[in-house]
Amino acid sequence: MAAFRIGLLGHGTVGSAFEALLESRAEAIEALSGSRPEIAGVLTRSRGDFAEILERSDLIVELIGGVDPAREYVRRSLQAGRHVVTANKQLLSRHGEELWSLAREQAVLLGFEAAVAGVVPVVRVLRDSLAGAHIERIHGIVNGTTNFILSEMTRSGCGYAEALGEAQRLGIAEADPTDDVEGADAAAKMAILARLAFGSPVHIDDVRYEGITGITSDDIAYAHELGLSLKLIGTAERLAGGISVRVHPAFLYGGHPLASVNGAFNAVTVESAAITEITMSGPGAGGSQTASAVLGDVVAALAGTPTLAGPSERLEIVEDVVSAFYVHMEVDDRPGVLAQVAQRFGDTGASIKSVVQQGSGERAQLMLVTHPLPRSALREALEAIAQLEHVLAPPRAISVINEEFV
Amino acid sequence: MAAFRIGLLGHGTVGSAFEALLESRAEAIEALSGSRPEIAGVLTRSRGDFAEILERSDLIVELIGGVDPAREYVRRSLQAGRHVVTANKQLLSRHGEELWSLAREQAVLLGFEAAVAGVVPVVRVLRDSLAGAHIERIHGIVNGTTNFILSEMTRSGCGYAEALGEAQRLGIAEADPTDDVEGADAAAKMAILARLAFGSPVHIDDVRYEGITGITSDDIAYAHELGLSLKLIGTAERLAGGISVRVHPAFLYGGHPLASVNGAFNAVTVESAAITEITMSGPGAGGSQTASAVLGDVVAALAGTPTLAGPSERLEIVEDVVSAFYVHMEVDDRPGVLAQVAQRFGDTGASIKSVVQQGSGERAQLMLVTHPLPRSALREALEAIAQLEHVLAPPRAISVINEEFV
Repeated sequence: MAAFRIGLLGHGTVGSAFEALLESRAEAIEALSGSRPEIAGVLTRSRGDFAEILERSDLIVELIGGVDPAREYVRRSLQAGRHVVTANKQLLSRHGEELWSLAREQAVLLGFEAAVAGVVPVVRVLRDSLAGAHIERIHGIVNGTTNFILSEMTRSGCGYAEALGEAQRLGIAEADPTDDVEGADAAAKMAILARLAFGSPVHIDDVRYEGITGITSDDIAYAHELGLSLKLIGTAERLAGGISVRVHPAFLYGGHPLASVNGAFNAVTVESAAITEITMSGPGAGGSQTASAVLGDVVAALAGTPTLAGPSERLEIVEDVVSAFYVHMEVDDRPGVLAQVAQRFGDTGASIKSVVQQGSGERAQLMLVTHPLPRSALREALEAIAQLEHVLAPPRAISVINEEFV
Repeated sequence: MAAFRIGLLGHGTVGSAFEALLESRAEAIEALSGSRPEIAGVLTRSRGDFAEILERSDLIVELIGGVDPAREYVRRSLQAGRHVVTANKQLLSRHGEELWSLAREQAVLLGFEAAVAGVVPVVRVLRDSLAGAHIERIHGIVNGTTNFILSEMTRSGCGYAEALGEAQRLGIAEADPTDDVEGADAAAKMAILARLAFGSPVHIDDVRYEGITGITSDDIAYAHELGLSLKLIGTAERLAGGISVRVHPAFLYGGHPLASVNGAFNAVTVESAAITEITMSGPGAGGSQTASAVLGDVVAALAGTPTLAGPSERLEIVEDVVSAFYVHMEVDDRPGVLAQVAQRFGDTGASIKSVVQQGSGERAQLMLVTHPLPRSALREALEAIAQLEHVLAPPRAISVINEEFV
């Protein structure tokens, strides 16, 4: 039987897990495909030569991460007519179109299932199963670290810093967690999912994002009273005039399929008129899961699965999206404060759905949930509210995702 | 641009939904694939000629259902070198190997995403994304009608007959619900999933199944006290000596990913050491959802996705599987009854995890949950218990799926 030679770039947690998994599954893959996959060479910082490995490989697995030198290696591999499988979301969210276009020209596969939601097969499902569907919206929990932290804050009532520390102790958060907790990692993944769902180029710079560092245990506790659970949600949706792709903390009503996804899990819900909605969930990261997703793409290359089609259209990025919001205020509880707050919302055309007050006197907490309104109107209302005499600190707002409005 | 001609066999709910969906998506599919799909002919009981339609089609969509004449039509289509997309689980669970083998010989696609779990892309994920994985187990809720009925019994406390009536009123259950409620529909789907997961031929006759007609609202209410929820679960798993594929009512612990799947939904959890587990869920049936799954396969045929690989091995079907069980007994509540019951379990090497008694006196209800034991040992224990003087009716058992034992 012919060998199928794999050049492996990067040999960290995922790289070594992939090497071990490939060895254990080589026989089964040979039975399935007629070719036996084997490692033709490994490139790390201290060993291996890229040009030599490329020369003797049929497929390159890129697990270095980051933009440089990964971009150069992937480009040269594709130009040389090699299949490439990568887990590199930064690279694809910045230079995806260039690389996919190169793969099409060379008629090779550029596989990237492992770049989004680990082994949850959302890339394949969007690219293949739903290729004929008109997708309206994707909601995703695509960062396991932040979902773990929020779950931990919800479960134990602890604060953000403590939950982050726990995640770091368990190896779920990195020593420098910036990319995860500030939302950039999720934003890169949502850019890739939006490109797949809408067939329109989406760059990470098109994605507005906000992380979880400002979330307090109070937000979670109060929202719990309203039947809401707090997640870092990535959204990609069609709107009049184009699409919106964004990542921010959001409250989900209990019935939402993502509301019960806890711990370091990922999950993605895809909505379309024809399919209603489907949800996929599973462990988001971890060396063995990511390695498994990489292996799936290697098998796809062996089977001759075609690469991603070119963009079918170029949609505008819409900034002023409509959502319901949870708003948290600290107020000096005098008669008329609530009326003044409500008036400011009314001035922007927004209406209030529910209000909860905790405490009383000089530092009462006022939490409300609005009916859907444009973000620009919310901003206007919050600015007006911040000027009110008895409102003690700038109000904070978190969007609310409610199935009623879907 | 070239047209891609589709012959449509069957024009019921799914067939007409498919025709409408194809028309609305034809332009987008043409942009994606370079070919414009169009209906070349429709065969119903009263109109159309199969041979003529076949002659002028590139792909046949079979939505007639049942084994005959669907088998003959699919066979002739494949022999003529046409791609085939089918939603026909009965056909594939009986004659799948013959038809997949024919598709491989002719190098055409035989697509069947719509045959299992509607638009939930479990076929594609098992065949492609997880092709390199060593799958250990699948648990699935693959029949929306029975899941609706059990959800309704749980929600409202009503009995089986009333919940079935409600499902029929809503169009979720058919006038003759036999295939759904007795488990045959789910069994056919599990045969197909097991074939995909294990690469071993599985015929519907290899699947042991049991439906939900014997479930009482008492079972659900009592189990609720133990923190369990009742579902009709399909299981396909590797065991020492081979595989087991079966469908029966089962209690799930609250933390199981399928425990919260309610209403006419389908969901499938796939377990493997490398991936841990992934879960996919969505609406199980409905004309537009099934049509959407069919369309996904049509697009796959256009893109040149390869057909299912031949069986890689032939695994034995294992009958005596191990599980925890919930056992329900009516007893005359005399001193020593529980000790006698426990003794009968002890005789077979099984131990009891928890016991609940409701009522007292001549017709008390005794419910217990065992630790895992082989089905053969359970049967032996139940037979011995049925002989006890103060046990008033044959005890009933339902298996319990507990993450602890996974």
